[in-house]
Amino acid sequence: MSDVFPTDYSKERFTVSYRIQGNRKEAYSKAEDICIEQTVEFPKDLLPEGEIFEFVVGKLEEFNPINKKEYRANISYPIENGSDSVIELLNIVFGNSSIKPGIKVEKLDLPYQFLQKFSGPKFGIDGIRKLFNAPKRPLLSTALKPMGLSSKELAQQAYEFALGGIDIIKDDHGLANQKFSPFLDRVIQCAEAVAEANLISGNEAIYMPCLNFPPEKINEMAYFAKKVGAGGLLVMPGLVGFETMKSLSENKSLDLPIFSHPSFLGSFTNCPATGLSHYVLFGQLMRLSGADGVIYPNYGGRFSFSEEECKQIARGCLDSMLEIKTIFPIPGGGMSLNKVPNIIDFYGSNLIILIGGDLHRNGKDLLRNTQEFRNLIENL
Amino acid sequence: MSDVFPTDYSKERFTVSYRIQGNRKEAYSKAEDICIEQTVEFPKDLLPEGEIFEFVVGKLEEFNPINKKEYRANISYPIENGSDSVIELLNIVFGNSSIKPGIKVEKLDLPYQFLQKFSGPKFGIDGIRKLFNAPKRPLLSTALKPMGLSSKELAQQAYEFALGGIDIIKDDHGLANQKFSPFLDRVIQCAEAVAEANLISGNEAIYMPCLNFPPEKINEMAYFAKKVGAGGLLVMPGLVGFETMKSLSENKSLDLPIFSHPSFLGSFTNCPATGLSHYVLFGQLMRLSGADGVIYPNYGGRFSFSEEECKQIARGCLDSMLEIKTIFPIPGGGMSLNKVPNIIDFYGSNLIILIGGDLHRNGKDLLRNTQEFRNLIENL
Repeated sequence: MSDVFPTDYSKERFTVSYRIQGNRKEAYSKAEDICIEQTVEFPKDLLPEGEIFEFVVGKLEEFNPINKKEYRANISYPIENGSDSVIELLNIVFGNSSIKPGIKVEKLDLPYQFLQKFSGPKFGIDGIRKLFNAPKRPLLSTALKPMGLSSKELAQQAYEFALGGIDIIKDDHGLANQKFSPFLDRVIQCAEAVAEANLISGNEAIYMPCLNFPPEKINEMAYFAKKVGAGGLLVMPGLVGFETMKSLSENKSLDLPIFSHPSFLGSFTNCPATGLSHYVLFGQLMRLSGADGVIYPNYGGRFSFSEEECKQIARGCLDSMLEIKTIFPIPGGGMSLNKVPNIIDFYGSNLIILIGGDLHRNGKDLLRNTQEFRNLIENL
Repeated sequence: MSDVFPTDYSKERFTVSYRIQGNRKEAYSKAEDICIEQTVEFPKDLLPEGEIFEFVVGKLEEFNPINKKEYRANISYPIENGSDSVIELLNIVFGNSSIKPGIKVEKLDLPYQFLQKFSGPKFGIDGIRKLFNAPKRPLLSTALKPMGLSSKELAQQAYEFALGGIDIIKDDHGLANQKFSPFLDRVIQCAEAVAEANLISGNEAIYMPCLNFPPEKINEMAYFAKKVGAGGLLVMPGLVGFETMKSLSENKSLDLPIFSHPSFLGSFTNCPATGLSHYVLFGQLMRLSGADGVIYPNYGGRFSFSEEECKQIARGCLDSMLEIKTIFPIPGGGMSLNKVPNIIDFYGSNLIILIGGDLHRNGKDLLRNTQEFRNLIENL
């Protein structure tokens, strides 16, 4: 009975590229093991006979040395094993194998039959550029901080940032619902402050609150934010889940751009030998999960991503994924005004530059500091 | 204005123990950095003056060498910075610092004022023992597999496992909604098969389906499972989110025991120098998030956890957390019948032993193999 493929069964496969540590023999054995572990999880010698089981198991399509201690294994899986959600995808790509040492997911190769089930980012680069009437230039972003300020004080910051020419003014990701600045109150005041500034400046700045909420509350809070004038949503997929971000993105009555924040995601990329590549985590997965822009710590700031890792992220945001839109890389994390020309040299102009604390550095006149940032961009 | 504590503000703090790589100077500097990064994320020299900002920032309470290259830093945070959800907790404990190298979260020290906001596991060890009328013995668990079997075939397995004396029969975590065995159909057939077997055996075996669904569908699927007779829920917090598991656990109309599966969580523990300790991830966090039992790969199986790491997990499940219940460690991952006596020697009897593929090893007579497993436990 189990040897009959269901009549509506597609035999299409998707492919995952793994980087595996070890000499040829060890790495090959790990690759064979992944084929089983990520599918049937069953002693191979005890598998029932039949085409269906041969088909369901992962297939080692290519196996090549990267160097003497690392090999690349391309393993294909039937899309029918699970392609209806990011949860199913990640479960198949790296569920149990995440717990084994020396295996890194480098790249996903997803065919049309797979990708058509995902709507991807709603706005993407083109959609966001239209919102800001900014067809070519890099966009500017900053964060409201520090935690401990009142909503009124944060709204005053938001006002000056918007007036000075920042496009996207986001909550610091630590701002949740603390008593200093409760969420509802903060969102009302900050959205209003940005709207007032736009009336004066003629800009289209938006306020983007951080949705630091459990899944059962996050929709309600997102609706509230939209209702009182927030122009986008900041989501932490490492904490609320990739699928929760995807669901916010697919929600037609929300219809707001979404930026992902990397909080709690570092363990996936910190270790060179295991986890996910920067390309997969901050590029491919974020796009499948509906982010229109991806915040990450730039090289040369207070974090440790290398130039090559940041290039990988940008490629993951910008490489073709058939009908899934391209999205903005948003390097941040200790960036300063004097680094802006280098950042643009490095990435080109399809990016959003996030500068936080440094806008407070040159004196307390946030408006003037912001104008300096905007002028830098306009005059490049 | 921001220098006035809100009138209902609690000054209670919780403490996080970090293991930091580096010589004394490097590690101390990283510890100071964590205090800022996990709270105000603001250049310290530019922080507004006032008690409130001094209070909000993390405080380095203790700093001691572990060895010449590692230091332990105990850092306290105000519970008011965020204690209303696991999301807020993890964001403060390790949000951005997860992205910095050489920092591992070893232990959380959570006071009553913090823990009282969390209901924790609904059943815990005592509640689950009552369900099975098994006050002392280890409980037995297995998984329905391999992927590719039809629901009818999986239900036949479930029947034999239940009849033979397995207590908890769970889906393999890869079983989602594949065409071979669609979720609704599988849950109906497997729950019915286990109920039939219980009528004959007089046992209280339960079927536990895997909720491989996005947050917006997971409740509906859990209700369905309960309605048709499932006796528990298998949840993968690494994929659906810790908060989603917590919400299922707190749902009074569900009222089913929950086991957590470690899928996709390996990157947090794989790297000795970064991530989360086994104690925190598989012990403390699972309890805060409502798991009644924690599945993880045992030492000596086909994964790589060490004996010491497994001991840590068991301690994390069983150590006192005030009113938060103790929960079952569930070692699995390539376990075999001949290892059972050693496993019980190692853990004691407050555990659930998960044996999957090996029950298929001694011939196809699942019933006989299962009875052998049960006899092993009864005769210890």
